[in-house]
Amino acid sequence: MAGLARHLLAEYYGCIPSILDDQGALERILVGAADAARTTVVRVELHKFAPQGVSGVVILAESHIAIHTWPEHGFASVELYVCGLECEPEAGDAYLREHLEPTHVETRLLTRGCLEKARAYPPRVEPAAGVS
Amino acid sequence: MAGLARHLLAEYYGCIPSILDDQGALERILVGAADAARTTVVRVELHKFAPQGVSGVVILAESHIAIHTWPEHGFASVELYVCGLECEPEAGDAYLREHLEPTHVETRLLTRGCLEKARAYPPRVEPAAGVS
Repeated sequence: MAGLARHLLAEYYGCIPSILDDQGALERILVGAADAARTTVVRVELHKFAPQGVSGVVILAESHIAIHTWPEHGFASVELYVCGLECEPEAGDAYLREHLEPTHVETRLLTRGCLEKARAYPPRVEPAAGVS
Repeated sequence: MAGLARHLLAEYYGCIPSILDDQGALERILVGAADAARTTVVRVELHKFAPQGVSGVVILAESHIAIHTWPEHGFASVELYVCGLECEPEAGDAYLREHLEPTHVETRLLTRGCLEKARAYPPRVEPAAGVS
């Protein structure tokens, strides 16, 4: 089944809490992961929550990377969503493991968008303007 | 299994191409979906690609919503990632269906982050500064 994109979901347990609460460090790590995954960064947006935790999103030319952290649990949830065949989300995951240093990791690799289904359910014809 | 977050993945086939290529319309639809899902918008970032397609991310107080569109296929891939029990990602999905008007939809609801595993693999103790 040919897919339009690959979506790698990763759960990182047992991380060091201070890294998971450090917006600057997480920004550098996300950009490094984007490079490792052979993707092109368009924009990086992070937001630090009170009392703790960070959400970060990297918009890529090939889709996005997102992270949400729970420093109190030493847990980070990550996804790498890429639509280019040349991208390597697994390499991005490897980079993240190296820098977040989890003691336990779980990943899932999903296919997003099916070309056969896109053909079976084609784009809808737009209503003609001005026709009542 | 108690989760830290819910991650609703949706594939919308058979949409009207011009909506999927309209950055302004998609921004309004994403913000509407965030409201419908009872989440709080922190920041909205969209990026339009040449020759077509849009990537959009809404950073929420409760995590994020992301969309990637393929107007040429009439296809949009969406995810609603929420970490609050009061959030209703299904209502966000319903809002998106209403406004993107797909002829075929597939959704998956995943649990992200497991509290039992976070306890089994607790946060790592940080190395003491200055100790060699």
